[in-house]
Order: sequence, then structure tokens, then C-alpha cells
Amino acid sequence: MKRTALLVVAVAVVGLAGVVGGAVLPSRVAHEDARAISEGKLPSGYRDWSLISVAREEGELDDIRAILGNDRAIKAYRTGTRPFPEGTIIVRIAWSYDSSEENNKTFGRQQSFIAGHPKNGVQFMVKDSTKYASTGGWSYAQFDDGKPLTDAAKLQSCFECHKAFKDHDFIFTSYAP
Amino acid sequence: MKRTALLVVAVAVVGLAGVVGGAVLPSRVAHEDARAISEGKLPSGYRDWSLISVAREEGELDDIRAILGNDRAIKAYRTGTRPFPEGTIIVRIAWSYDSSEENNKTFGRQQSFIAGHPKNGVQFMVKDSTKYASTGGWSYAQFDDGKPLTDAAKLQSCFECHKAFKDHDFIFTSYAP
Repeated sequence: MKRTALLVVAVAVVGLAGVVGGAVLPSRVAHEDARAISEGKLPSGYRDWSLISVAREEGELDDIRAILGNDRAIKAYRTGTRPFPEGTIIVRIAWSYDSSEENNKTFGRQQSFIAGHPKNGVQFMVKDSTKYASTGGWSYAQFDDGKPLTDAAKLQSCFECHKAFKDHDFIFTSYAP
Repeated sequence: MKRTALLVVAVAVVGLAGVVGGAVLPSRVAHEDARAISEGKLPSGYRDWSLISVAREEGELDDIRAILGNDRAIKAYRTGTRPFPEGTIIVRIAWSYDSSEENNKTFGRQQSFIAGHPKNGVQFMVKDSTKYASTGGWSYAQFDDGKPLTDAAKLQSCFECHKAFKDHDFIFTSYAP
């Protein structure tokens, strides 16, 4: 009887520790997400990752964007840990930069710009210093309408630009307090 | 022995269901966060809430901003549920709109604007249709450097502007896909 009861406890603990109310432990998730990206799939739940910062790019990009990070990314930003730990994933989402007539009408002046349709793809950086040693320890991935960009030259061009930020572990974005 | 074992299981289940790896159940959190705001305190963890959208305000505000929501807000946005359910909390964070010389140098042109220092306070809307019936079922709160704004006239002015969006349950922001 005692042995059975302990087994029940063990099952309950393991089961709940793995998934509770949709919350899965960070280590397992980081691994699964990194693998999904390397296999050309969007990692589930990335849209709910915590916000690192926001930005606006004029010119050809002409978008407004958000940079989100998985738990490891956010923890590293908050603690100032550099280089970023293995399994760090950072994602950049962007949208068209649209004037909001509805908001402007309410404010009584032309001043409001909001996120419109998705634009310029969804871009990921995944930290694995062994696997991606030749590109500074990061892989670069882009998804357009959910489909992975497979043009190696274009993906290599990400690294060429990020090289300028080698002193920040190849990351452009600072945490917005 | 059997009774003791079941008690152990029960304790394990309750304990783990409440908090696992820092993840707390949404219902309890929504209630605690709403109470914190009403008591003039920033709710813990709001900076990690999921992103609803981003925006840029020119003019006097002159900021770049992010709108985040608690679990209830995000679920309502995704399912198109209106009015928003009780306990929905939406927060607007904003930063100075800074030209990034570092990014511009890398891109080889003037195009990049990033989030600088925190600006224009942190603003919350909390849904409680009974408690806040006189202001459309929402309370409005603002924190400047972590301190609550207590000027009733200023807080009332939030509602006066949001009134124009009564058809969207008083919410300006749409979900950025």
C-alpha cells in the first residue's frame, strides 16, 4: 500500500511539474523551440514571449516592430548576463506603420501610428555556441507567412550585419526598462 | 497509512497547481493584480505580460509604446470576446522615441528609432463592471516612476477620451497579428 501511494505521489509530481495550466518548464520548452526553428517550423507560443523592446524602422523596411525573448533571453537581459546562455531565443516581429485616423480623430490631431498588417517576416536568433559556432554562436531564421526562408545567402546576410554588434554578443536590441 | 498517503498527494497537487516554476494560476493572479492597482501599487510581473500591439505617438506625447495584457485580455483578444471579461487588465508602457546612431551606422542610413528612457507613465485599465460602472466598467490608473497618480480629474480625463471607443468596449488598441 505504501509503495503504491508513493508511486501515485510521484506520478502527480512529475505530471504537474511538466505541465500545469498550460505552463511548461522553461528548459524543456527552450530545447523544443530551438529544434522547431531548426526544422523550419514556428515555435509554439512565441507570440506570448516577454517584450524586450520596440522600434521603428523607416526607409525600405518601413515598419514598427517588437522584439520578444524566451525565458532565458529575458533572464539574461535582466541580470546583464553576456554572452547569452545556450537556448536563448530572440524574435523580431514587425508590422506596417499605419496612421490611425480613428485615434487622430479622438486626439483632435494627427499624431497616432499603429501596427497594421504583419510585414518583413518573423525573424529568430537561437543561441547554440557549438552548433552555430561559425556565425557567432547564433542561428538566424526568418519566416514569411509562416514559411521558413531557405535562401542561405540571405540568412548569411543577417550575420554580416549583426557582426557589427559583436561586443553585445551580436544583439542589436537593449532591454527597454 | 492510506489516509496519510492521500493527504500527501493532495498537498502535492494543491501546492504544484498553485505555483510551479514561478507560474501561478491566472484567476488568482488577475484578482491580486487588480487589487494591487486599486491600492496604488504596480502589479508584480506586468512587464512580462503578452504583447497586444505597439504604437508611436507624435506631438506632445512623443513616444513609442507597447500595450500588454494579462491572460484574460489576451484570451479575449484572440477569441474576439467583447465586452472583455471581468479581471481583464491592459497596460500601456511608453518610452522616449530615440534615433539610434549605432543602428544607423550599421544600416548605412538614418532609419532606426528605438525605445529610450521610460516616458509618460505606465497606464492600466482594469475591468470590473460593478465596481467601475460609472466609467464604462473600467478603472484607469497611472504610475509615474512607480508612484500612483492620484489626481482624480486627470484620471477622469482618460475615460473622457476612451468614451469615443465605446463600441470597442472603450479600448483603443487592436491585437497585432
